[in-house]
Amino acid sequence: MSTNRKPTITGTEIIAHTRLFKVEQVGLRFSNGCEVSYERLRSSPNGAVLVVPLLDDATVLLIREYAAGIERYELALPKGRIEDGESILAAANREIMEEVGYGARQLTHVKSVSLAPGYFSHVTHIVLARDLYPERRAGDEPEAIEVVPWPLKRLAELCVHEECTEARSIAALFMVREQLMGEHG
Amino acid sequence: MSTNRKPTITGTEIIAHTRLFKVEQVGLRFSNGCEVSYERLRSSPNGAVLVVPLLDDATVLLIREYAAGIERYELALPKGRIEDGESILAAANREIMEEVGYGARQLTHVKSVSLAPGYFSHVTHIVLARDLYPERRAGDEPEAIEVVPWPLKRLAELCVHEECTEARSIAALFMVREQLMGEHG
Repeated sequence: MSTNRKPTITGTEIIAHTRLFKVEQVGLRFSNGCEVSYERLRSSPNGAVLVVPLLDDATVLLIREYAAGIERYELALPKGRIEDGESILAAANREIMEEVGYGARQLTHVKSVSLAPGYFSHVTHIVLARDLYPERRAGDEPEAIEVVPWPLKRLAELCVHEECTEARSIAALFMVREQLMGEHG
Repeated sequence: MSTNRKPTITGTEIIAHTRLFKVEQVGLRFSNGCEVSYERLRSSPNGAVLVVPLLDDATVLLIREYAAGIERYELALPKGRIEDGESILAAANREIMEEVGYGARQLTHVKSVSLAPGYFSHVTHIVLARDLYPERRAGDEPEAIEVVPWPLKRLAELCVHEECTEARSIAALFMVREQLMGEHG
């Protein structure tokens, strides 16, 4: 890899702020002298979790939930924001209790991913949840979430499913399948 | 799958608007009668492309570029917005000419993915680019982009690389590897 030095941030300014979103204008000076002004979204510094809950080594629990951004139901992994003072693994366990009705005795961090790193500070921590036990906690969902058990060996089929489009979920499922294949030789 | 009926949109209102971002408040009435108000980001209706340029069947061309959202260099697939009147495949070809210095004689749509469908309308079309030929077009990047050829068989290594975090790129690489493995039996 070559030698671009990180640009210098010459200034930042919040130019819009709503309940959920904060838009910041950032001035950058690149090491070649080029100066630019970009807009970027600042999200909660806590980040989010996306959980891969394995009912057994062959079956993942997906959820089917209305997605207001794309105005249809989406089939994806359970996820949610990390609350203040909450650890990544505790957030993951809470989210699956709220969204799929299970807790996990074994929680491991798989990878932290970005969404659109050019203009979005958001980080999502992918967590593998195993050794599940039934435990339901009330969430803040406006309607009951459908839980959809999905065989990991049918991952290719999920990738062409029109309701399964979320890049984080697809990436997480492939990475976990890779990990499980490693465990089983 | 069960029977939740799609909620009704009771109203929308733009509550913030910058050069790049539009935040909308949307009222929803779920089929169980529950009413909620969400914020969501509206992005360009054109969408974006993310390209998997194969130098040969064993090697993908990644780029290493500064990402202002996370304030570090990110190793990912080339991508960009679709311009007005431009097709998905034409946008994909233009982006690789600008970012990796190649055009492609063969372009195929792999899958369209969402980023955070709960609150973001954004769609990214993943395109596989093969049969490459050298062609460089000027882009609007503030500094030269590093092109990093990466062997597809080292995908697991890329997944643990600290500079490779973008979920769309990880998902796209796994899906293309799956497709190539299918072709080669």
